[in-house]
Amino acid sequence: MTHRRDTVQMEQRWTNARLATMAGDDLGLIDDGVVAAKDGRIIYAGPAKDAPATQGAVHDCEGRLITPGLIDCHTHLIHGGNRANEWAMRLEGASYDEIARAGGGIVSTMRATRDASEAELVASALPRLDALIAEGVTTIEIKSGYGLSTNDELKMLRAARALANIRAIRVEPTFLGAHALPPEYQGDSDAYIDLVVGEMIPAVASLATAVDAFCEGIGFSPEQCARVLAAAKAHGLKVKLHAEQLSALHGSALAARHGALSADHLEHATDEDVRAMAEAGSVAVLLPGAYYFMRETRLPPVQAMRRHGTRIALATDNNPGTSPTSSLLLMLNMGATLFGLTVIEALRGVTVNAAAALGLSAEIGTIEVGKACDLAIWDVGDPAELVYRIGFNPLHQRIKDGQ
Amino acid sequence: MTHRRDTVQMEQRWTNARLATMAGDDLGLIDDGVVAAKDGRIIYAGPAKDAPATQGAVHDCEGRLITPGLIDCHTHLIHGGNRANEWAMRLEGASYDEIARAGGGIVSTMRATRDASEAELVASALPRLDALIAEGVTTIEIKSGYGLSTNDELKMLRAARALANIRAIRVEPTFLGAHALPPEYQGDSDAYIDLVVGEMIPAVASLATAVDAFCEGIGFSPEQCARVLAAAKAHGLKVKLHAEQLSALHGSALAARHGALSADHLEHATDEDVRAMAEAGSVAVLLPGAYYFMRETRLPPVQAMRRHGTRIALATDNNPGTSPTSSLLLMLNMGATLFGLTVIEALRGVTVNAAAALGLSAEIGTIEVGKACDLAIWDVGDPAELVYRIGFNPLHQRIKDGQ
Ligand SMILES: [Zn+2]
Ligand SMILES: [Zn+2]
Repeated sequence: MTHRRDTVQMEQRWTNARLATMAGDDLGLIDDGVVAAKDGRIIYAGPAKDAPATQGAVHDCEGRLITPGLIDCHTHLIHGGNRANEWAMRLEGASYDEIARAGGGIVSTMRATRDASEAELVASALPRLDALIAEGVTTIEIKSGYGLSTNDELKMLRAARALANIRAIRVEPTFLGAHALPPEYQGDSDAYIDLVVGEMIPAVASLATAVDAFCEGIGFSPEQCARVLAAAKAHGLKVKLHAEQLSALHGSALAARHGALSADHLEHATDEDVRAMAEAGSVAVLLPGAYYFMRETRLPPVQAMRRHGTRIALATDNNPGTSPTSSLLLMLNMGATLFGLTVIEALRGVTVNAAAALGLSAEIGTIEVGKACDLAIWDVGDPAELVYRIGFNPLHQRIKDGQ
Repeated sequence: MTHRRDTVQMEQRWTNARLATMAGDDLGLIDDGVVAAKDGRIIYAGPAKDAPATQGAVHDCEGRLITPGLIDCHTHLIHGGNRANEWAMRLEGASYDEIARAGGGIVSTMRATRDASEAELVASALPRLDALIAEGVTTIEIKSGYGLSTNDELKMLRAARALANIRAIRVEPTFLGAHALPPEYQGDSDAYIDLVVGEMIPAVASLATAVDAFCEGIGFSPEQCARVLAAAKAHGLKVKLHAEQLSALHGSALAARHGALSADHLEHATDEDVRAMAEAGSVAVLLPGAYYFMRETRLPPVQAMRRHGTRIALATDNNPGTSPTSSLLLMLNMGATLFGLTVIEALRGVTVNAAAALGLSAEIGTIEVGKACDLAIWDVGDPAELVYRIGFNPLHQRIKDGQ
């Protein structure tokens, strides 16, 4: 869903810019470039010398770099509470058992989310969303998955959509009912999947654009995830999967067989998994924040992805338990520093490939005629600086739908 | 040196706050606390119920957390150029040799620094300084060490001091002439140390408050560093040392023998080194940004530091080659996530222990009567949130010298 501002716009033009359009296979660099937009759409993007004459407003970018607005294609931005205290206990040496006994873990986030009203969930997510917006993010995916009851999952999805009404941001809400087993279904995960498939998915189908599940030993089995994905497709929803984060269950190949937009995490994916994803066009969404925060050591198979042509995206995975980060710029650096991505791969991972991971390639992700005019204008001389700096935000201006 | 604003202030009072004073051995938490200041100095810090009556201005903190203003005690903030391109080449698989042949490495920063005027060095450092200020940093140490000639080192130190005239920040300038061997001394490092000792240190003695050196196989030998530290002390300057970053030369024990304020990096320090530092009162300044960016795997001996009572500080090491970060908040998280520091250790590392690492314990680093009223007011409920979040800045307000 998109935040819409109703005014018909006169033509806007950004001149004297270096464009990283992301068109083609690399950064699509154009020196002395111009972007022009009307009614929120790009009507020209290219060299100044070829730009048609204009009657509209002209903004001199003074040589700055323009990229597409950034896209955070995997977040759990809506959640109650935080887990700072539980993490502090872990640093003091507490075991997972001790933390669980102290009320920690994902169940604590579920309780805080269930206890919160829709308005409270919106209010607590706003500072995190504003941090992303301040970094030039114009589109964000937000998952449910901490409600784990039909009503609480619906509440999360409504909260996610509400954000797009109070900020100029495109929100893609994803239903993640199969995130964890709620306590009331302990010992009977198949019965919970019955609920997800039989009640939740029909209920959320008009609120969510996609369905996700957590395919993992501590989550749900490939068979259970397959039921979820099949039900999603039966309701006309796009699908994706959390896969191969902690072990190799081949959820990513399963996702590919279901024509998934993406499989996400993938540290334990095999060469075969990655090949299946490339053939199906499923994007590999890498989440270096979770890898970093959990001190994982197994790297995702980036070389195999390159060999097979699997598209790579990067996202924050913003969540309170395993990736409490709201900096997509930092994920660019972590993708390069920790996973060995190149500057081109990292930047395409938060633009054109992140758009593909949301099924929005026709709409956003590159600076090309016909697409939404979502731009980020940066105080840097070279695109590499966006990836190289650690915890520094050189955003000069952010444009959403031409405004 | 301190930025001075000349007005005599009326009393200022911050009420309805949770204080993390850092007095004592932990966070020094005071619920329902009050801080009062006059003429830039703290005149009361404690429970609201014990606070004396006031005639001054009262600021309601609405339950927010107040810490001492943060202190970044190890930076190379002043430098020409950046090394984003060289790093991009490395990500593409270029070897160090290829990068050196392409003009990369520390020599490229030396050239860019020599080519820059003092005003240009100030201008290029400002965005990085402003990023630190936006995170509540009120004191910063800045090293020279990219000029590597007497005039260029002096220029760097003047640029560092100039920052304190255009921003409300305390700057501690450190002379680091023995950072690298300039090309004109290739093959004769002793002659360069002669220059550092005989010409540079006397020349910088009125501009710098401390002297540092890079004790490392690729830097200078312990014997050469000892000459530098001895000359510094002869000129009344405090001393510190880059030590044990890449190998165990026992520079940290050498620093301790010279009564150093700190030894910095320390991944390869031994139990003996760390014990010597504790006995001498030298602070262990840990630099997780460099560890992260260089993908090091050897961890500093934090357990040994705890056992011997070596005080631990954390800093950005902001520099273009090995730690291009200007987020001290991110270093809190990296100190905990990567080095296993507790929340208390991390927060003391950027306040009270960072003050000790600069020899400024009497002046800053805790919220106590008589100290400068440098405060950071945070939109968090719990101090752990400052360490737990990754790339998120919850600063509400920053107070320097009571303003
Ligand atoms: Zn996730
Ligand atoms: Zn350094």
